Amino acid sequence: MSVLERFGVSMEDDLLGRFDGLVEKRGYSSRSEAIRDLVRQEIVKDEWADPNTEVIGTVTIVYEHHEHELANVLAELQHQYHESIICSTHIHLDAHNCLEVVIVRGLSAKIKYIANVLISTRGVKHGDLCCTTTGKTLT
Amino acid sequence: MSVLERFGVSMEDDLLGRFDGLVEKRGYSSRSEAIRDLVRQEIVKDEWADPNTEVIGTVTIVYEHHEHELANVLAELQHQYHESIICSTHIHLDAHNCLEVVIVRGLSAKIKYIANVLISTRGVKHGDLCCTTTGKTLT
Amino acid sequence: MSVLERFGVSMEDDLLGRFDGLVEKRGYSSRSEAIRDLVRQEIVKDEWADPNTEVIGTVTIVYEHHEHELANVLAELQHQYHESIICSTHIHLDAHNCLEVVIVRGLSAKIKYIANVLISTRGVKHGDLCCTTTGKTLT
Amino acid sequence: MSVLERFGVSMEDDLLGRFDGLVEKRGYSSRSEAIRDLVRQEIVKDEWADPNTEVIGTVTIVYEHHEHELANVLAELQHQYHESIICSTHIHLDAHNCLEVVIVRGLSAKIKYIANVLISTRGVKHGDLCCTTTGKTLT
Repeated sequence: MSVLERFGVSMEDDLLGRFDGLVEKRGYSSRSEAIRDLVRQEIVKDEWADPNTEVIGTVTIVYEHHEHELANVLAELQHQYHESIICSTHIHLDAHNCLEVVIVRGLSAKIKYIANVLISTRGVKHGDLCCTTTGKTLT
Repeated sequence: MSVLERFGVSMEDDLLGRFDGLVEKRGYSSRSEAIRDLVRQEIVKDEWADPNTEVIGTVTIVYEHHEHELANVLAELQHQYHESIICSTHIHLDAHNCLEVVIVRGLSAKIKYIANVLISTRGVKHGDLCCTTTGKTLT
Repeated sequence: MSVLERFGVSMEDDLLGRFDGLVEKRGYSSRSEAIRDLVRQEIVKDEWADPNTEVIGTVTIVYEHHEHELANVLAELQHQYHESIICSTHIHLDAHNCLEVVIVRGLSAKIKYIANVLISTRGVKHGDLCCTTTGKTLT
Repeated sequence: MSVLERFGVSMEDDLLGRFDGLVEKRGYSSRSEAIRDLVRQEIVKDEWADPNTEVIGTVTIVYEHHEHELANVLAELQHQYHESIICSTHIHLDAHNCLEVVIVRGLSAKIKYIANVLISTRGVKHGDLCCTTTGKTLT
């Protein structure tokens, strides 16, 4: 288990004022909790910068399933990478539009590659990769 | 909140012996807990027997996505019933085989119909409907 | 690839009549398609009868999340078996009731055990195991 | 159906060189396809800037389920917003760490609020909101 340490931070008053605004708006219980989150965010970003770190990404895509046989194309693509893809969740938004969230685990370079392939597929209207962590290296 | 009542049950000794075996094998903490589960199961079955009760079903299907353009066909079918389908979860089992779990909410007659349509689609290797409940009517 | 063979089946006329009713009601395109599904169902059942076959199960449970700290208890249980559980999908049915679909892969004896543990947990209102296949052994 | 129009774009050669690099790296089939994606991204960002547009967000969080009874806390929070949350997908990453992807639909101001509440919960190690669209307004 980790031990909680304390240290001081100096900050300009106007910057502190805006930070306190964010702490409240985001619903944090204290400045420390917010700062811990900022530090952890940077660590996760840093993990993603190293192509050989194991990470987790969630790829969200929105598309019309009957355009360009897109349901088949995306199923085919995902099966090529089935060893990296844990699962996909699919929402039938309306008679035409689909939302798909694909959860991918592996080395960051490969996850980025798979995300690019999915998002750049012709017919995908919108796509985004959320870069997160296996949690192992974060207390 | 509900009040816990007690009542007696008479049972042949050999039947009771087998029931105790089941209680242990299934990991129940007591006979009462197991009997409450049996009664709730019957209530849920009974809800499904009335075509106008609101229920929830989970349809599990296994198929090869590249057979008969099945990914497209199943996406098309599910979009026809998008108002009843909450979401689908998709597992890419290997390079060929898919598992899809479709969670459907609505009147039991309609849910059974949608499940039949999905399961009987040519190319679906195995399918099953799990009949469950919205939980509202069960304490 | 498999070769399609044909063989004859003899059946009493009244049984055939009822079977044709089922074929229509279930939405099958032909008797052969329906019979292939029946045979595949038996094969999957048979796979589950052997404790050492690799299978896939989907466990559907309905519960009130604030009863008996059930969200914690179920999360704890699922983490004990995290190597067998691929993913869970969770629907917040209303302010009290949850539906959770847990997809589990492994030897049939272990999957049945995990399903029993989840379903028999005190506070789970309804649970069911859908027994399906990895698809590898079915054409 | 939409009609495809053509128009010219002027760009500095070094900027064009880097853009072509991106087009290739991201796997786009043409500059036009990449530019259409950039435009659609801006439109989705713009939708999110208006608090009264209906949007879809996917919130990804990583946490240790036994810290601070977090499984209960997060289940409780999500049930408060059950009318906005379509479903959650949960991966048991290891014996301690969980990944949860929560799909939320509603007015952008509310979705941001729910995402902030989930991400800022004490014990959540990492969280991110992917801002996407219902697809209705995008061709």
